[in-house]
Amino acid sequence: MLKKVILMVCDGLGDRPVKELGNLTPLEAAKTPNLDKLAAKAECGLMHTLGRGKTPGSDTAHLTIFGYPIDQCYSGRGPIEVAGLGLKLQGGDVALRGNFGTVGDNLIIKDRRAGRILEVEPLTRALDGMDVDGVKFIVKPGTAHRAGVIMRGKGLSGAIVDADPHVPDVPVRTVTATDDTPEAKRTADILNKFLLQAHEVLKKHPLNAEREKDGKLPANFLLVRGGGQYKELVHFKKKYDLTACCIAGGGLYKGVGAFLGMDIIDVPGATGLPDTDIEAKFKTVLQKLQEYDFVFVHVKAADSLSEDGNWEGKRDFIEKIDAAAALLTDLSAETLLVVTADHSTASEMKAHCADPVPIMFYGGGGESIRIDNVTAFNERACAAGGLGHIVGLDVMPQVQNLLGKLHLVGA
Amino acid sequence: MLKKVILMVCDGLGDRPVKELGNLTPLEAAKTPNLDKLAAKAECGLMHTLGRGKTPGSDTAHLTIFGYPIDQCYSGRGPIEVAGLGLKLQGGDVALRGNFGTVGDNLIIKDRRAGRILEVEPLTRALDGMDVDGVKFIVKPGTAHRAGVIMRGKGLSGAIVDADPHVPDVPVRTVTATDDTPEAKRTADILNKFLLQAHEVLKKHPLNAEREKDGKLPANFLLVRGGGQYKELVHFKKKYDLTACCIAGGGLYKGVGAFLGMDIIDVPGATGLPDTDIEAKFKTVLQKLQEYDFVFVHVKAADSLSEDGNWEGKRDFIEKIDAAAALLTDLSAETLLVVTADHSTASEMKAHCADPVPIMFYGGGGESIRIDNVTAFNERACAAGGLGHIVGLDVMPQVQNLLGKLHLVGA
Repeated sequence: MLKKVILMVCDGLGDRPVKELGNLTPLEAAKTPNLDKLAAKAECGLMHTLGRGKTPGSDTAHLTIFGYPIDQCYSGRGPIEVAGLGLKLQGGDVALRGNFGTVGDNLIIKDRRAGRILEVEPLTRALDGMDVDGVKFIVKPGTAHRAGVIMRGKGLSGAIVDADPHVPDVPVRTVTATDDTPEAKRTADILNKFLLQAHEVLKKHPLNAEREKDGKLPANFLLVRGGGQYKELVHFKKKYDLTACCIAGGGLYKGVGAFLGMDIIDVPGATGLPDTDIEAKFKTVLQKLQEYDFVFVHVKAADSLSEDGNWEGKRDFIEKIDAAAALLTDLSAETLLVVTADHSTASEMKAHCADPVPIMFYGGGGESIRIDNVTAFNERACAAGGLGHIVGLDVMPQVQNLLGKLHLVGA
Repeated sequence: MLKKVILMVCDGLGDRPVKELGNLTPLEAAKTPNLDKLAAKAECGLMHTLGRGKTPGSDTAHLTIFGYPIDQCYSGRGPIEVAGLGLKLQGGDVALRGNFGTVGDNLIIKDRRAGRILEVEPLTRALDGMDVDGVKFIVKPGTAHRAGVIMRGKGLSGAIVDADPHVPDVPVRTVTATDDTPEAKRTADILNKFLLQAHEVLKKHPLNAEREKDGKLPANFLLVRGGGQYKELVHFKKKYDLTACCIAGGGLYKGVGAFLGMDIIDVPGATGLPDTDIEAKFKTVLQKLQEYDFVFVHVKAADSLSEDGNWEGKRDFIEKIDAAAALLTDLSAETLLVVTADHSTASEMKAHCADPVPIMFYGGGGESIRIDNVTAFNERACAAGGLGHIVGLDVMPQVQNLLGKLHLVGA
C-alpha cells in the first residue's frame, strides 16, 4: 500500500516544439533516461493545470495542484510572497510585495531596484510598525532589493492597483481602487499616504545618505505590487491528514508551502537558478520522506530559461534534473512519486502558455498503479497515457485515492 | 437502428494491479474471451462514475449511471433500500433501513443481528402502523434480520444520525439531528420515542419469548440507519421514454430499480452472492428484452470478493460472468449492450476506490457504433478506447444518442 508521497514540480517544464531542436520540445530533445525509466513504470497523462485554455501563473498553478481552487483561495501574489518571507498573515490583512527603488523629487522612477541594492533590512526596520489612520504596516526584507508589506487593520480590501508601474522613467503610480467599495478606496488612500510618508523616512535614512556619498542610487521609494487580501486557508495537513514539507529554492514556492502550512526546508545550494544543486534537493527529499508523509520539491530554472528564449539551456537543465532523478529510481514500495510541471513555458514566446504538461504517478512497489504503455516522460508521449487529460485539481484527489484516503460518496 | 438496450453493471469490477496476479488487475488476469469478443466490436472507454477523484458508493453510482445527479436525487441509502422492499414512498417520507438486534436492559447491544434471526415478519407486523406524535411508522421485513422503516407525516427531515452504532457492546445511539432545523430535531425526537416504544413491544413479543426459551437471542431492538428523506423522482420510463426492468440479486440494486420505477424481475438462483446463477439472469435478460426497451442487469459478487481482499476469487468470478456472457454474443441488430461497473474496488484496500472502470457500447448489428481498436475488456485496454474518459452522467445521454432519442439543442 502506498503511504508516502513525493510531488516534484519542474517549473515551466512543458514547451512547444522548437525548429532549432528538430521540432522537438526541450523536454523531448533532452536525454532523460531516468525520467523515462520512471514513466515506463508509471501511469501518465497530460495536465491542463487551471483547465484547458488557461495560462497559469506559477502561484495559481501551485495552489491548484495542491487542491486549493483559485476562485476561492487565490487573492494575489502578495500574500503568498509575504508568507514566503516568514511573516504570519491574519485573516483580513492586505499583503504586497515590492522593490526598493530610486525616485527623483517629482517621484519619477530612476531605477526600479535602486541599483540592485543587496541589503534593505535597515530600511525595512525604519518603516516597520508605522501606523496610518489606524492601519499598521509590517515591513520586512526579501532577497536583495525586495520587501514584503502587510497592512493590518479593519475594513481593508485587496482591490487596488500596483504603485509600481513596472517600467522606469515614469512617475510612481498613485494607488487606486479596482472596485467601487469604500474599503478599496480607503485601502488605496491609506497606502498612498504610507508610501509618501515612507519616502520621507527613506530620503533621510543614513543608509541612503551613505549610498549617495558612495555614488550609489538611494533606495528611497517602496514600489509595491501584487496586493491581495489574505483569506485564512485550511492548512494542507488538516485538509489531507498528511504532514508535509516544502523543498524549494525560489521565494514564491517557499511562499506557497508556507501559505499552506508546510514546513519549509532550506537546502544549501538550492538557488532557484540554473546552477542550483538538484542532487542536494533530491537527497533532502529522501531524508525528509522519513519524517513527513508528503514532500513537495520544486525545481525552478527550466521556466526561467524558456522565459529567456533559451531552449538549449532549458534542454540542458532538464538533463541535469534527469541526472539527479537517478536518486529517485529506487524508492520504497510504499512511496508514490508524482512528477509534473506547474505550466508550460513557450520558449518561442518567452512566456507561459496554456499547453498542457506531462504528469506521471509512479509507485515504488510497481503494484497499485495502473502502469500504462508510455515509456518516455514528455509532452507527446504522455498524451497516450492511462490518465488521459486531467486538470490540476485532479492531482490531490488521485493522491488521496491511491493512499486510500478518499471518503466514500454514498454507501 | 438500435432500439433496445441491455445495461449490464458488474459491481466493483474495476481494481488495481495486484502483485500476486503478476501486477494485473483481477479483470486483466481473468480469461474473458466473450467480453473481449464484445469489446473488439464495441466502442470502449473509461468511466469516472461520479467524476475524477470521487469514490462512489454503490447507491450513488447507480443513480448517476441512470442519469440522476446525486446532488439533486440522492438522499441516503434508506429510501433506496426501502423501495427495494416493495414499499411505496411518498414525497416527504423519511426512510431508514435497519437490523433487528439484541440489547440488554441498559440498551447495550449484545448482537447487531439478534443471532442472525431469519424471519422477522411477525415482529415488523407488531410495529407496523404505530403512531408517534402524529407520525406514522410503516415497518416491513427485509431479508433475514433486516427491515425497512418509513416515517410518514408532516415536517420531517432526513438530517439525522444512525441509531445503529455499527458495532456491538456499546449502547444504542440516541438519534440526534445533523443540522439546526426544527424538522431534524423533531424527527430525531419522534424516532427515539418510536424506537423505545418498539423495544417495549418487542421485549414482550411471543416470538422473542419463544426464542429465549430455545436459548436464542431475542430480536428486541430495531437498529436503524441510512435515514434519508424521499424526494419524488421522475421515473426512468418518463425521463427516457423507455420501458425498463431490473434484474438483480442484491436488495440495493432492486431498490434502485424500484426507486426509478422499473419493474423488478425476480430470477430464481440470482442471489447476489458468488454462487449466483448468472446464466439464468442473462437468459432472463434476453427474454425480457422482448417486452421491455431497457433491461438493467446487475451482477454483484466481484465487489464483495474484492472487499474481502480475495482477488483470486474475484478473478474467478469474472470468468464466471464471462462464461455466461456467451449468451450475449449473438444479439439482434437492434440491441445495444452497455457493459460497465459502478465503481472499482481495490482488493489491496478491501474498499471502493476512485480508479475509473471500463465501459463498452456494443451494437448487435456491428453498425452504428464507432468500433475502436480495443480488443480486451479491462481497465488498461479500455483507456485507449474511442470514448476516452467519461463520467457516469454521460452514459444515458450516449444511450439516448445511439437510439436517436436526444433532442436537438438549437436548430
